Amino acid sequence: MLVAVIGTGLVGGEFIKQLVSIPPETSPFSLVSLTSSTRTLWTPENPVISAASWKSSLAGATEKPDLQKLTKDLAQLISPSTRAAIIDNTSSDDVAAMYPVWLKAGINVITPNKKAYSGDLGLYEKILAASKESGARFLNESTVGAGLPVISTLKELVATGDKIKKIEGVFSGTMSYIFNEFSTGSPDGPSFSSVVSIAREKGYTEPHPADDLNGFDVARKLTILSRTISLNPASSSPTSLPSLQSFASVQTTSLIPKPLEGIPAGDEFLARLPEFDAEFDKMRKEASAEGKVLRFVGVVDPVNGQVKAGLEKYPVDHPFATSLGGSDNIIMFHTERYSPRPLIVQGAGAGAAVTAMGVLGDLLKLM
Amino acid sequence: MLVAVIGTGLVGGEFIKQLVSIPPETSPFSLVSLTSSTRTLWTPENPVISAASWKSSLAGATEKPDLQKLTKDLAQLISPSTRAAIIDNTSSDDVAAMYPVWLKAGINVITPNKKAYSGDLGLYEKILAASKESGARFLNESTVGAGLPVISTLKELVATGDKIKKIEGVFSGTMSYIFNEFSTGSPDGPSFSSVVSIAREKGYTEPHPADDLNGFDVARKLTILSRTISLNPASSSPTSLPSLQSFASVQTTSLIPKPLEGIPAGDEFLARLPEFDAEFDKMRKEASAEGKVLRFVGVVDPVNGQVKAGLEKYPVDHPFATSLGGSDNIIMFHTERYSPRPLIVQGAGAGAAVTAMGVLGDLLKLM
Repeated sequence: MLVAVIGTGLVGGEFIKQLVSIPPETSPFSLVSLTSSTRTLWTPENPVISAASWKSSLAGATEKPDLQKLTKDLAQLISPSTRAAIIDNTSSDDVAAMYPVWLKAGINVITPNKKAYSGDLGLYEKILAASKESGARFLNESTVGAGLPVISTLKELVATGDKIKKIEGVFSGTMSYIFNEFSTGSPDGPSFSSVVSIAREKGYTEPHPADDLNGFDVARKLTILSRTISLNPASSSPTSLPSLQSFASVQTTSLIPKPLEGIPAGDEFLARLPEFDAEFDKMRKEASAEGKVLRFVGVVDPVNGQVKAGLEKYPVDHPFATSLGGSDNIIMFHTERYSPRPLIVQGAGAGAAVTAMGVLGDLLKLM
Repeated sequence: MLVAVIGTGLVGGEFIKQLVSIPPETSPFSLVSLTSSTRTLWTPENPVISAASWKSSLAGATEKPDLQKLTKDLAQLISPSTRAAIIDNTSSDDVAAMYPVWLKAGINVITPNKKAYSGDLGLYEKILAASKESGARFLNESTVGAGLPVISTLKELVATGDKIKKIEGVFSGTMSYIFNEFSTGSPDGPSFSSVVSIAREKGYTEPHPADDLNGFDVARKLTILSRTISLNPASSSPTSLPSLQSFASVQTTSLIPKPLEGIPAGDEFLARLPEFDAEFDKMRKEASAEGKVLRFVGVVDPVNGQVKAGLEKYPVDHPFATSLGGSDNIIMFHTERYSPRPLIVQGAGAGAAVTAMGVLGDLLKLM
């Protein structure tokens, strides 16, 4: 299997490291191309085999990135005995737009990039059609929960004929950390703004915390899960899930206070966030009075036709309160078979090592 | 993909139902043979396509079960464009002994039967060698946790180069139910024998409860997990796990009171179990005094080279105490990447529907 990697940052670098760590005598993979934002290495005669050398090899490459050329070059090497996969480790819309082209050319596509699967429905449908036409596959385990078995579990439930009643979870590591710290069941605790500031210092938030607090990351993940159910060729029964034109169609309750919407700089945003601490504190107290905690959750509900993201209250003895720690994700699958108690997957849902692991896991599934 | 099913009981029947529920226009599978304990249906020209008709078709078959003949007949139909899989839905040692023969013949093997993978190490090594020789695969997701993604998650962790530090879990649905009822953190509660009696009435135990209380089912599952790490061709680093000659090599602490060992009848066993209620009550009180609950857990510890099953104490706020309900399984993977908090999988770990789902999921992985 010929492998071309696009994106050589944190996740891309870790993916390459894991890929070349497979002992050469057992590895079915040949890493023939690396593309960064500034250059492309194309080396089918001399594949990358060392975690130590790829950076210098790429630095020495003289070609500029050219995805059309990469497509053509790679497609020419495909034969009945030689398959190929492109790994998109970017978060680029432009790269995502290429998936239908690659799939049509018979190149498998694997990515942790949520853009194609949570964006415009038209692109998603093109991806499905291209994959069906050529037989090339697209795999995206790492788009939800990183290396946790979330997408694969959902696909298996659907493909084996289980009925999904509800998927409910804490899908954002950032939101997980913030509310695990902010709301423990006690009426008091640290201020909301102080928790967000610390999360940012620890690197758990985007540079601009509003990019997490808007809930879009969760909405994107819910879009992917919802489409994995409703647009799955293996689905044997219709659901009443809405046809999401994009992640913007998800009912998302943003945590950004109205007056702070549109502030362009993260620093200014954080400086003004304390003005709203009293509001968040009031919600915490109300939850506590009911014996509950606050969690920012996502729900995909095929029974009631709902896909929504927002702040909800859970009893202090609920797994979202008792079992969750750090910035972990937790996902509950309520199904016809997993009833009355759900199938639960939990663990780190972000980070380069576990994200790259999910990507490499997908690549191994092709073999 | 030609599919032959051996074993048409609860799990086998449910598997057939799920398999033929895949819409014929999208199904890559052709169900060409059914074998029960008394007869074999061999019908490659007229595959089974309906959940309604297979029982009468099998009942009308006149051939006796003959695994050698089935192997020969099926192997003759294999070609570069036609693959085959045998699904062993029995718990038979005799069927398990055939796996190397089938794999050598190029027939994939899928099963929830723990016998081959937890029994004699020699058989396991023959299975590995036969699979390597022909390229045919053996998949056994449902041998641990039924349809829960346990084996696939472990294989992916290993294959992508993560280091397993410890796997720890409640692997027996029966033991889960018994101790979830018996030990809740309170010093008092129902007697041990009464909980076991109710579990038996509900069908959660084997007809003879000692077949659960001996811990062998857990020891078998731990053997499978341990071998999936230590004998995995994808393992890149050695572990200090013991070479288990069979599940009997696992350090297993039986819950059968010494004087009751060897009682052949379940009824007599249960009639005498109350004699030992005081002992179990004492353990419960001791745990409670430490703020803990009792759980029957299995541990695979590649760091310290231990594989063991037995009763342990866990704090009342540990997920084994707070998150577990009914007869659910819970499995924690502590690894280099999933650290300090583990990857957790939880849910029903027994039952025909979820077991059959794991088997069908394996079959889908071959496509």
